[in-house]
Amino acid sequence: MRDLVPPVPALRRAVAERILAVYDRYGYETIETPSVESLSVLLSGQGGDNEKLVFKILQRGESLERALAGEGELAEIGLRFDLTVPLSRFVASHQAELPMPFKSAQLGPVWRAERPQKGRYRQFTQCDIDIMGEPSVAAEIELCLATLEALDAIGLRGCTIRLNDRRVLSGLIAHHLGPDAPPGPVYIALDKLDKLSPAAVAAELESYDPAAVRDLIDLVVHLGGLEGDAQLALLQPMVTEAAVLTDLERTLGALPPGRAVLDPGLVRGMGYYTGQVFEVSHPDVGYSVAGGGRYDGMTARFGGPDLPACGFSIGFERVCDLVEPGSVLPARAKVAVLWESDEDFARAQAWAGPRRAAGDSVSVIRRARNVRKQWDDLLRLGFTERVEGSTLA
Amino acid sequence: MRDLVPPVPALRRAVAERILAVYDRYGYETIETPSVESLSVLLSGQGGDNEKLVFKILQRGESLERALAGEGELAEIGLRFDLTVPLSRFVASHQAELPMPFKSAQLGPVWRAERPQKGRYRQFTQCDIDIMGEPSVAAEIELCLATLEALDAIGLRGCTIRLNDRRVLSGLIAHHLGPDAPPGPVYIALDKLDKLSPAAVAAELESYDPAAVRDLIDLVVHLGGLEGDAQLALLQPMVTEAAVLTDLERTLGALPPGRAVLDPGLVRGMGYYTGQVFEVSHPDVGYSVAGGGRYDGMTARFGGPDLPACGFSIGFERVCDLVEPGSVLPARAKVAVLWESDEDFARAQAWAGPRRAAGDSVSVIRRARNVRKQWDDLLRLGFTERVEGSTLA
Repeated sequence: MRDLVPPVPALRRAVAERILAVYDRYGYETIETPSVESLSVLLSGQGGDNEKLVFKILQRGESLERALAGEGELAEIGLRFDLTVPLSRFVASHQAELPMPFKSAQLGPVWRAERPQKGRYRQFTQCDIDIMGEPSVAAEIELCLATLEALDAIGLRGCTIRLNDRRVLSGLIAHHLGPDAPPGPVYIALDKLDKLSPAAVAAELESYDPAAVRDLIDLVVHLGGLEGDAQLALLQPMVTEAAVLTDLERTLGALPPGRAVLDPGLVRGMGYYTGQVFEVSHPDVGYSVAGGGRYDGMTARFGGPDLPACGFSIGFERVCDLVEPGSVLPARAKVAVLWESDEDFARAQAWAGPRRAAGDSVSVIRRARNVRKQWDDLLRLGFTERVEGSTLA
Repeated sequence: MRDLVPPVPALRRAVAERILAVYDRYGYETIETPSVESLSVLLSGQGGDNEKLVFKILQRGESLERALAGEGELAEIGLRFDLTVPLSRFVASHQAELPMPFKSAQLGPVWRAERPQKGRYRQFTQCDIDIMGEPSVAAEIELCLATLEALDAIGLRGCTIRLNDRRVLSGLIAHHLGPDAPPGPVYIALDKLDKLSPAAVAAELESYDPAAVRDLIDLVVHLGGLEGDAQLALLQPMVTEAAVLTDLERTLGALPPGRAVLDPGLVRGMGYYTGQVFEVSHPDVGYSVAGGGRYDGMTARFGGPDLPACGFSIGFERVCDLVEPGSVLPARAKVAVLWESDEDFARAQAWAGPRRAAGDSVSVIRRARNVRKQWDDLLRLGFTERVEGSTLA
């Protein structure tokens, strides 16, 4: 976990405000759930590998003593690892108060006990929109429209949605490796096609017929280079549920031209997805900046009704790294008034009033003995103007 | 801990944005520290009783096994209980990168394992500004100005700052009960004067001379009813450090007329305060909605330089409870377009585009079978306008 030193937090706040303003205009209602959830929710099997990364909170007082005596658990609550599992629990808890379909927006921290590495932190921020209660691809379409507009609103140019459906990939796998091949390990191997060579991916599938594996990988690579219509025509005989392809066609057709493509090799890690899945690519980076998909039925795991559900999550830190500060920060002067005497200070505050009311930022600060270092530090924080308090007499 | 159900979170977000916008105009830099801190920081003695309320995070893997075998601690990190201790640790860690004096703004959750009761939650939000490195009351004055303006910006009318200095109260105590009377228990008793009768407070101080205790309490009550000049004249012979009263006079004189009063009985619980302390009263409620004070030297406890420090914290949930939604939420239409067919849905999204671009919120939602209940639920969320998708043809 890390401290965020100025000017980074101001940029994050501006990015958050812009994204949430778009979601508000689309009618997504902001919700907040606590950072801490019961372990029975967090470890319910919906979180996949993330469940292994939960930070658990130690019991206190008598409960802790009982646990240490072997008569109970050391922990019963923990920090959330995503916003999707808490949302499903939230909707199950509050269904009577919520309109259906319900459209939610969330922005908040999540925690995972991952091995720290460059660009990965144990506390990070997710920014999610979800639609609960909408069974058709109307949900997918609107989530994609709103996410694209949110990314536009923070000035990220050239973002493209890659779209797929779990059942496309399972159809391809069944067609090539036989209907009894468990698709899980094949998903995991194919997911590496953006990092490894086809031969290296094939090597991970050595328990299958090598020719069939090669054909499967070649087809996935080949499909990636085709236009949408040609992709759908090729997939037609292999995807048994007809609605899967017509739904993909409908989603693609509803999004602005050039903003979405079908990526039949797209896997997405989470086991809970049940239909379409999406990721957003940005031309400057090799990783996705957002992702999501359909996860029907998760609310039923938490005692709620069996609702269709679909969500799209922006990787907040990832987009903040790509944002140009000038596209989100307000254009206004940032003034430092450096005072030396009590009289200067009073005059400086009086002088600052109208400038602040006009929208400028005016910081009234004691002039440091080493004023050159002070001004260098202030420049790094984005100050644009320096006024000597003594000149305000 | 609790879920926040719409429309509450949207109001909270609007309140946060308005407060932080004021702090930004005053030149406070937003910082973010992690929710989790080392227990060596959280339990360093700076947090008073809050240190007993820390949620500790259970060790994992081998560290946990070692701890259970008696060879280490069950927990080494925990959730922060306030934003002041993390700020002091932050400034100690990052002093080389920060301009001095440094003015910070923070808004974020804190956690305390308190017994849940009405209006108290185990996770709540604090919103703090602090000035590190300013030894004079210029810090107190500016924090008070900025806090009053922030409360004005969210439409809270009639907020008054009550101001005191720890050394006023210790002077009164020494004058009445003798220089050797430990002031701690007397602070605690006098702090209850707003809830208990003078006789009940006197009963808590039965180990002192009853006549002296009665005189002390009478004086504190009497002082509370006087104007500033009369208060200062009465205090003069009892407060030994002359600068204490002139500083209070200067702070009071620098704030807008009628917005601040001297309250010689004001204590504030935290042990770390070293000078002026403040609380903000609101005419509608008996508790304070904000508070703060000077806490010089805390950075030195975390390996940093021995900096003067002063801060003001808004009780975020408390002010949100008092805010009129109309004073902070944008005035804009909130439209629900209820669609029934795929064609309606497409037309509704096309129709929504220009309205969203104009700043309205337009939610495109499937028309529920029980549309009366659906619209009731939407009205509760603040929707102002309902459009039948089928009429958009």
